[in-house]
Amino acid sequence: MGEFDLIARYFKRPARRAALGVGDDCALLQPSPGYQLAVSTDMLVAGRHFLPDVDPRTLGHKALAVNLSDLAACGARPLAFTLALALPQADAAWLEPFSKGLFALADAHDCELVGGDTTQGPLNICITVMGEVPVQQGRSLALLRSGAQAGDDIYVSGTLGDARLALDVLRGAVTLPGAQLAAARQRMDTPEPRVALGMALRGVATAAIDISDGLLGDLGHVLESSRVGARLDTHIALGLLRHGRDAADKVLPEATRLACVLAGGDDYELAFTAPTTARDAVQAAAAASHTPVTRIGQVLAAPGLQLVDAHGAPVVNSLRSFDHFA
Amino acid sequence: MGEFDLIARYFKRPARRAALGVGDDCALLQPSPGYQLAVSTDMLVAGRHFLPDVDPRTLGHKALAVNLSDLAACGARPLAFTLALALPQADAAWLEPFSKGLFALADAHDCELVGGDTTQGPLNICITVMGEVPVQQGRSLALLRSGAQAGDDIYVSGTLGDARLALDVLRGAVTLPGAQLAAARQRMDTPEPRVALGMALRGVATAAIDISDGLLGDLGHVLESSRVGARLDTHIALGLLRHGRDAADKVLPEATRLACVLAGGDDYELAFTAPTTARDAVQAAAAASHTPVTRIGQVLAAPGLQLVDAHGAPVVNSLRSFDHFA
Repeated sequence: MGEFDLIARYFKRPARRAALGVGDDCALLQPSPGYQLAVSTDMLVAGRHFLPDVDPRTLGHKALAVNLSDLAACGARPLAFTLALALPQADAAWLEPFSKGLFALADAHDCELVGGDTTQGPLNICITVMGEVPVQQGRSLALLRSGAQAGDDIYVSGTLGDARLALDVLRGAVTLPGAQLAAARQRMDTPEPRVALGMALRGVATAAIDISDGLLGDLGHVLESSRVGARLDTHIALGLLRHGRDAADKVLPEATRLACVLAGGDDYELAFTAPTTARDAVQAAAAASHTPVTRIGQVLAAPGLQLVDAHGAPVVNSLRSFDHFA
Repeated sequence: MGEFDLIARYFKRPARRAALGVGDDCALLQPSPGYQLAVSTDMLVAGRHFLPDVDPRTLGHKALAVNLSDLAACGARPLAFTLALALPQADAAWLEPFSKGLFALADAHDCELVGGDTTQGPLNICITVMGEVPVQQGRSLALLRSGAQAGDDIYVSGTLGDARLALDVLRGAVTLPGAQLAAARQRMDTPEPRVALGMALRGVATAAIDISDGLLGDLGHVLESSRVGARLDTHIALGLLRHGRDAADKVLPEATRLACVLAGGDDYELAFTAPTTARDAVQAAAAASHTPVTRIGQVLAAPGLQLVDAHGAPVVNSLRSFDHFA
């Protein structure tokens, strides 16, 4: 199977929204009138972002999911993506399920593959995703990292730490009952980008980010960009670990669970801030997007991130965010 | 040096045209009113697209140049790009010249780095470039592969085959005098994307493509998309090999030179078609963009690509285009 056969067989589909799709030098796209384009790129490397033996179908899902998650964090509606793929060899047994997983998620979000590149090399998947955000009266409605205000509530969508918990089990660091491992592993392998929530939070949230490197590190980017600090309630955050709640509660020490929740990474949930006056609007956005959200802290004027327990006492934080070169 | 230091030190610059640049979940872009967006992605892998010991400064240039070349082939004006980079380690001695080479070319084309990703992994450079093309009366002025008409002239910009000649010398397959090798190697290492020519050919050329895999293969894509055939004059094409003209003429057999010109690849020149009535307009576009162009053949109604010599006699073609998985 040659390069052009590979593209034709697994990745070429009729252009839909795009004026011109796969098969010319460029794809041509037209954002809707009154919208601006949101663009993000994520690269996934074997052994770094996924286990070498991962099911190619879930990998196809995840490679696009982590990119759609960036659009979600901006409140953008997905439009299109490009896919660049370095493969050790053109293997139908891998390409077939990979493309199926990729397109299943793409179709669920009406996001069209419009171009890309394929080459021989160590397995590497690079996706650039494009979405659109409305501009109203000259003002973008995109959710940025820089808009958090002192006094705002801090929220997190869904659950946190389960992906990291699964990874720790697979690495042999902790143990979990089989059914819980399977459920946690599903969180690791097939995260669901919070696109609907991000769009529903336009005009409601003051700042947002998606949690890929761990809550503390990613929330830290919001605080830094917004030049504010925050207080996080660790006892509430602990409740966000779905698969450590019951049986595992008795198995895993609190420090392990807290590390998963606060610094696990690979969650692809949204962390966002909103004024206290917007609590009803946040709940309405959560309900409209069928996405649970939990209030976990408050933005403070003074810089720094304080962790406090159920009694308001400080919790020592020795956790670090994931850094590819640290 | 950590991941975020690396980005801040080498790749973060103040946002210019983009509404929002490096440092949020997405970059925000606004194409000009009446324009559509052209998007293309190219991935470069060490040992596959460049020699492992290549000067990082020229690599930074080339990684962006091959992407800008796709915009040129569509007649698009460059706007912005994202950069995803997998690096074995965060090495300042590599990152510094790489970013310098990258930004020198980006600035020359007023193309802004708006986002990306960095990760640890085998060296891999993935760039997605975005440009804009005018839409007039509902009709895109983008140059496509599919517009060639029987009777059209076929043109090529600049010179062909020199990059391949340099590679063949470096591989020990042929020899060249040192000065010629240096000049040919410059063509291989720092191709100049034909952006100005592409823009000047809007409304003049009927079809265009950039030559990355070799003239025959890339022109073949145009013919296939346009459902036409072509006749190419090999004696004219031979004259496009700049560094085989004089001294090397006596050293290299014609078959070697022809292979470089017709199937060498890595040229990043434009191949395009235009009606015979547009010959003056083509020359005006070439002059306006300071880019030499050469008429090398004609589009035919019957499918297939015929090579003919100076006497119109057929030339046997056993050359193949570059295919990453063949």
